[in-house]
Amino acid sequence: MKLHGYFRSSASYRVRIALNLKGLGVEHVPHHLRKGEQCAPAYLAINPQGLVPTLENDTGAILTQSLAIIEWLDETHPKPELLPKDPLRRAKVRAFSQVLACDTHPVQNLKVLARLRQLGLPEDQVTGWAGWANREGLSACEKLIANEAGPFCFGDAPTMADVCLVPQLANARRFGVDVSAFPRLLKAEAAAKAMKAFVDAAPDRQVDAE
Amino acid sequence: MKLHGYFRSSASYRVRIALNLKGLGVEHVPHHLRKGEQCAPAYLAINPQGLVPTLENDTGAILTQSLAIIEWLDETHPKPELLPKDPLRRAKVRAFSQVLACDTHPVQNLKVLARLRQLGLPEDQVTGWAGWANREGLSACEKLIANEAGPFCFGDAPTMADVCLVPQLANARRFGVDVSAFPRLLKAEAAAKAMKAFVDAAPDRQVDAE
Repeated sequence: MKLHGYFRSSASYRVRIALNLKGLGVEHVPHHLRKGEQCAPAYLAINPQGLVPTLENDTGAILTQSLAIIEWLDETHPKPELLPKDPLRRAKVRAFSQVLACDTHPVQNLKVLARLRQLGLPEDQVTGWAGWANREGLSACEKLIANEAGPFCFGDAPTMADVCLVPQLANARRFGVDVSAFPRLLKAEAAAKAMKAFVDAAPDRQVDAE
Repeated sequence: MKLHGYFRSSASYRVRIALNLKGLGVEHVPHHLRKGEQCAPAYLAINPQGLVPTLENDTGAILTQSLAIIEWLDETHPKPELLPKDPLRRAKVRAFSQVLACDTHPVQNLKVLARLRQLGLPEDQVTGWAGWANREGLSACEKLIANEAGPFCFGDAPTMADVCLVPQLANARRFGVDVSAFPRLLKAEAAAKAMKAFVDAAPDRQVDAE
């Protein structure tokens, strides 16, 4: 399989973690987002949004959107499970993941921040915007798992929730957010970061890291 | 079951369609977003994001995030199916849904537009922002199903993709987007709007409609 991504993209980071947890090796195809490589016609032909990641599977089929890719990986390579079996627990894991993947990350991604700059906002307001989006999302997530024993977000093994959390916390720190306000999330992050699958997926370990 | 929502919220609209397709009746509990009712402590206790929708199921369990709720409905009430059986087709339906539910709607929701106004952007730029987000998302979706015969987004019956598409097209029109640029999406919308489940879920049919 081939994973089209970018070392610093948190959506790519999620899929890298999921692939590592499943023990699946892939060929990494970097696209430098700050140089606009994701807007090359050849890439837009496989991902019309011009976003990363995109996964090409062994049959050449194209998969886009990080959560859809992760659910596909979980359905086609069931062990270890990234979603619990119980429908209500699955809904909890998905909801936590979507707070980050729907309401947090897309509001602070490169494309949105570039648009804010185009509208004339000064750099401190752009960074403030990204910090605000991260704080809103992470605050909600902290409450969603306040009563979960852990140490991971949901139980004693990582799920899609942890796969989404670790890259988002990295973003939050990059935008100057004081993450000490989220002790339960940090507990889950610490459990995740003790696992090679998470460590090896980190941005600074990627072939295109700068 | 109880559905906490708002007539004009497109995430609530998605869940209303899914409930209707499944033939499930619920008690509707409106929260007036423009009056800030979603920020009342009693509501924040069940939805720490202060967003709609929230579903309380028959056992009193709380479900948040529209796509997580829809997947839970599909897992617990399997007929009619809102996701295909084949993993790759499921991934396509989920990816299409996530283009709208992750990258489009959250970038143009009430909270984000209010933040843009707080930063001093004039009303025409705020509306322009919402139009831009809708055009970006819908353009990608048009390409994702260009080779799908339809008439629905994926095949001859509605899936989660159509459930997300119809509310997003309503938003796009509200923000002045020329949706005639998306003929394949309009074909899917026409097929959906011939179904009572979609018609009855429309904002103007809700108890809190203004």
